Amino acid sequence: MKNYNDYLSYSKKINDVYMSMSVLNWDMETYMPKNGNKFRAQQLSTLASIAYDLETKPEYGILLDNLSCDNSLNEDQKRNIFLSKKKFDKKQKYSAEFIKNQSILISNAFRDWRIAKEKNDFNYFKKSLQEIVDLRIKETKILGFNDHPYDALLDKYEPNLTVKDVDLIFDDVKSKLVPFISQISQNNNIDDSFFYQFFDHEKQWNFGIELLKQMGYSFDSGRQDISAHPFSSSFSPQDARVTTRIDENNLSEMIWSCIHEGGHALYEQGILAENYGTPLGNSISLGIHESQSRLWENHVGRSLPYWKKNYDLLKSIFPDQLKHIDCHMFYSASNNVKSSLIRTNADELTYHLHVLIRYEIERGLIGGEINVDDLPLKWNQLYKKYLDIEVPSDSQGVLQDIHWSHGSFGYFPTYTIGSFYAAQFYNQASKEILDIDAKILKGDMSDLLIWLREKIHVHGRRFDAKDLCKKITGEELNFKYFMKYAQEKYSNIYKLKD
Amino acid sequence: MKNYNDYLSYSKKINDVYMSMSVLNWDMETYMPKNGNKFRAQQLSTLASIAYDLETKPEYGILLDNLSCDNSLNEDQKRNIFLSKKKFDKKQKYSAEFIKNQSILISNAFRDWRIAKEKNDFNYFKKSLQEIVDLRIKETKILGFNDHPYDALLDKYEPNLTVKDVDLIFDDVKSKLVPFISQISQNNNIDDSFFYQFFDHEKQWNFGIELLKQMGYSFDSGRQDISAHPFSSSFSPQDARVTTRIDENNLSEMIWSCIHEGGHALYEQGILAENYGTPLGNSISLGIHESQSRLWENHVGRSLPYWKKNYDLLKSIFPDQLKHIDCHMFYSASNNVKSSLIRTNADELTYHLHVLIRYEIERGLIGGEINVDDLPLKWNQLYKKYLDIEVPSDSQGVLQDIHWSHGSFGYFPTYTIGSFYAAQFYNQASKEILDIDAKILKGDMSDLLIWLREKIHVHGRRFDAKDLCKKITGEELNFKYFMKYAQEKYSNIYKLKD
Repeated sequence: MKNYNDYLSYSKKINDVYMSMSVLNWDMETYMPKNGNKFRAQQLSTLASIAYDLETKPEYGILLDNLSCDNSLNEDQKRNIFLSKKKFDKKQKYSAEFIKNQSILISNAFRDWRIAKEKNDFNYFKKSLQEIVDLRIKETKILGFNDHPYDALLDKYEPNLTVKDVDLIFDDVKSKLVPFISQISQNNNIDDSFFYQFFDHEKQWNFGIELLKQMGYSFDSGRQDISAHPFSSSFSPQDARVTTRIDENNLSEMIWSCIHEGGHALYEQGILAENYGTPLGNSISLGIHESQSRLWENHVGRSLPYWKKNYDLLKSIFPDQLKHIDCHMFYSASNNVKSSLIRTNADELTYHLHVLIRYEIERGLIGGEINVDDLPLKWNQLYKKYLDIEVPSDSQGVLQDIHWSHGSFGYFPTYTIGSFYAAQFYNQASKEILDIDAKILKGDMSDLLIWLREKIHVHGRRFDAKDLCKKITGEELNFKYFMKYAQEKYSNIYKLKD
Repeated sequence: MKNYNDYLSYSKKINDVYMSMSVLNWDMETYMPKNGNKFRAQQLSTLASIAYDLETKPEYGILLDNLSCDNSLNEDQKRNIFLSKKKFDKKQKYSAEFIKNQSILISNAFRDWRIAKEKNDFNYFKKSLQEIVDLRIKETKILGFNDHPYDALLDKYEPNLTVKDVDLIFDDVKSKLVPFISQISQNNNIDDSFFYQFFDHEKQWNFGIELLKQMGYSFDSGRQDISAHPFSSSFSPQDARVTTRIDENNLSEMIWSCIHEGGHALYEQGILAENYGTPLGNSISLGIHESQSRLWENHVGRSLPYWKKNYDLLKSIFPDQLKHIDCHMFYSASNNVKSSLIRTNADELTYHLHVLIRYEIERGLIGGEINVDDLPLKWNQLYKKYLDIEVPSDSQGVLQDIHWSHGSFGYFPTYTIGSFYAAQFYNQASKEILDIDAKILKGDMSDLLIWLREKIHVHGRRFDAKDLCKKITGEELNFKYFMKYAQEKYSNIYKLKD
């Protein structure tokens, strides 16, 4: 391997293995029969070890070293080499054994979590969760950190993010958002009970498909399926899939998870196919990824013009259930700010308290102040503290999220970061796109999608998250845009005084 | 790598890569969106080259050489080493370039074939089919052969099978089966037109699921999906899947393809999980695989006791369509021997003339006597010659089968070999299982499945096909069992004189 083309081939080969793993994972969570788990875990573990061998091959490191000094490369090429080298250097820290073991533990944890959740019995998950936590603690030592071991895990999903940063962000949440939520809850007489009637599975499904199409999601380059927990998964920009979950007794769950995952998948579909297999063919960070899903879910999908456009269709599908509900009532109900049990169903304000709880637990688990055994109790205490809510069962409590069973620690805070990026980006888009509300009102999302494509999607990893944010909005991530958005919108809905 | 355990780990690792490819292929033919093809082809090509690198690694060859001389191994272990070494030696003949190129050509051919079939235009497929044929001709030179280049391709699917053997078998078909078919067609006044009414997709689907369950197919270790061409695909004995195709204007298509693929999948589910990743964890040959599908499809699924059991259920699902049809009429219609266009819908007798046509074309393409350009014409001529039937369109003619687009040449003859094995095995099972018809009449297939498991499935590749046949039935493959079965069954249905 000598030149940049050799690098391209090799980098694509590594990516092909990862994309293959993604297909196996997608299948595992959508269609795989239940006995398939054991050998699937082994197959994933084998592919992971193959990817690891490719990524850590000394010849690849030498090639990256050489190309790092090659001044004939253009800026994009230099950027690819820089990021690949950074990743290579980081990968060197892991042993093949660690990677293989991780893959097995995660498959087992996923299996156990599914059973535990179904049986509402945390004990089924305890052992494998402990193994995952131990693995992650080990990982913080492998990766190294300055202040808090959890920093090492945060950095995996949102480069350079630290406990210090996140603590500061949540200080903002606590000092500004929490009192605002409290103000709302004193004025909240919204009735959203109509969401909890019977809504036929297939009709819900079809409505979700319409929403995805309206957003500009390409079904020639993607598809939607059902899974226990909604997710998006991309095997290339030309095969970027979403999943959803349909509860026939809760209409809201499908609608906004559908828009949310659609937002993720639009990002993936917007990345340039010509950059497949290189850093420029990848999304920047989980925070930026989440900014795309949240922007669509909240700033578009929970806006008044959006429902002025789409409510008639929804009402025509469910005329009996929505007989007495007009568009404004629907809009208000879809923005009902209220403490609730399930993170993925939470409104966009209390949502960040759900994240806060997970963040505090993860920080405590990795820092050694919380034990896995105590998790259900700790979880329930924190839900009482921040959301003033009793958790009736572990299935609806500590077992509700898939993340830990996937081995993901350090992931949750990116949801909050992403939401705040979304507010800042949407604020900018509103300034640059002529009359964006009127376009949404007509169901025309094309200008918004073009803006997102041009500003964010096509660049892949050309810029760091912070640089991208500055480039687009002229300043670094700033909580004030989320707070401004929240105050304007909810003061109006709840008729709050300034 | 030093000992037998090292061999096991390595062999499993190779298998994991192949099973991963199978998942990607399964997805490609069931759920992948249409734009996904390009990068999927590349991903499969990468995995194929990784598998190739693993399979041809010199250290693996040395390990196999060493273990070949290790007398401390037990018989099963020796068998695994023998077969793995044989495969290794064969693989050495292929270059990495060949394997990679093959994977790309096949993906392209599959894409083109789908379009060609949809558009009823052979021209869309011509170029990529020519590339596949050229590749296979090149392969015959790589592999070597004694008499006919096509021998090298037959051997890939049915070890040691030659053009000479197949010519002999088809001589039998021509001299004994063809006059018998002719005798039937002179006495055929069966009306099977009721099959071609409207049968609701979902109701057909549900009936197919019931049949699979009755056979003993485990949905905990498998699943059924829809694809353009039905197939079975196994990722482990604990995840052995089937697909089916449902034509709402043709009930028969789904029923027997469902039983057929179920027969394949039962074989895969019956292989021992403990042998995963070794030759003993694999099926013997395509012929033996086909014997399992044909045994279920024809000897069970087209028998009178089977329909005495299942017809009431079918009639209850489609009461209007089957109002005037009784069980015997249904049984006769399901054994309507009649020239037809589509191989997969053919009755079990004329089926072998469909195979004969493909065999003659493949032998001619590989031998250089037939050109790809002439295929539609040649195809139509042979259908006129052997089946006395006009082919109205290429979609229903030369484009009907998926096989060539998958790069499979030498595959078709195994269908006929498999059917003849099935007849011989079922003849033996009928002697060894007490009152098998009475059991089928009760819907109890368990003794038959146990017999197949014990005699065939659990052994994996412990025996060669020929040895297995001798071990089970006391003699080599003999056409007379198929002929005897055909004569007894159809003389009865068509009231033929001896």
